[in-house]
Amino acid sequence: MDIDKLSTGTCAISRGLALVGDTWSALILRDAGRGMTQFDQFRVSLGIAPNILSRRLKSLTEAGVLERRRYSERPPRDEYVLTNAGVDFLPILAAIGEWGRTHNGDGVLGHIEDAHTGETVQAIVVDGRTGKRARPETWRVVMPMRQDDAGG
Amino acid sequence: MDIDKLSTGTCAISRGLALVGDTWSALILRDAGRGMTQFDQFRVSLGIAPNILSRRLKSLTEAGVLERRRYSERPPRDEYVLTNAGVDFLPILAAIGEWGRTHNGDGVLGHIEDAHTGETVQAIVVDGRTGKRARPETWRVVMPMRQDDAGG
Repeated sequence: MDIDKLSTGTCAISRGLALVGDTWSALILRDAGRGMTQFDQFRVSLGIAPNILSRRLKSLTEAGVLERRRYSERPPRDEYVLTNAGVDFLPILAAIGEWGRTHNGDGVLGHIEDAHTGETVQAIVVDGRTGKRARPETWRVVMPMRQDDAGG
Repeated sequence: MDIDKLSTGTCAISRGLALVGDTWSALILRDAGRGMTQFDQFRVSLGIAPNILSRRLKSLTEAGVLERRRYSERPPRDEYVLTNAGVDFLPILAAIGEWGRTHNGDGVLGHIEDAHTGETVQAIVVDGRTGKRARPETWRVVMPMRQDDAGG
């Protein structure tokens, strides 16, 4: 996967996936969304090898989805917090969760609640113009003319 | 990434990512969503190595997101079409597109139109209970008790 090509093509979906198109990266953002900030928190939560975690944190930081902050000088320790772009991605993860619940949801799964009301959040994708559920059957994808586009 | 573990944990997001947690897989679904069905169509669109494409088509088929159909006996030829689960994932891809447009959107990008009205579709994630934009700042993730959960 040529991330640079993905990130310069004319397809908006590719542009999004270029920033966070990887299962580990998505799960790191999920955990950041529930308050984790430290390397060891992610490592334990995900059961991920440290070198893979380092690489993903670096690429998410470079992509502008996480911000790296030094929270201790002695010993030197960094934490990773969601940027605005990262926070903006959480609803998409929640929508992936609803889709996973529907299509791969055997057993008891977690859910998201509104912290104020305690009500269960159900993340769905709508067309912002109409407020109605997105209906891909009626969609047509319109791409600008360009030859050097990686899958766009 | 242990897909089996991802697919049996208690996190709904993991359940979704287990079915389609890979950039190539997401782009294959995108292309299937704009009418592509044949191996060579995906291969040319994505510039993907044939062996990688074969593997991804196989795993998407096993995940129940694509269905493999024989459309010619001589020579033997299969095509891949979206299942209901696959169609259900397209709005999420569109939401990833809107996010990519917002946070990685330099230059001219494609968009999605309503085929009937020609209006631009803007895929956003809302809370289905309220119809309002999802606001992750107010969320609390509630996970069932379980010890053997991969990142859940």
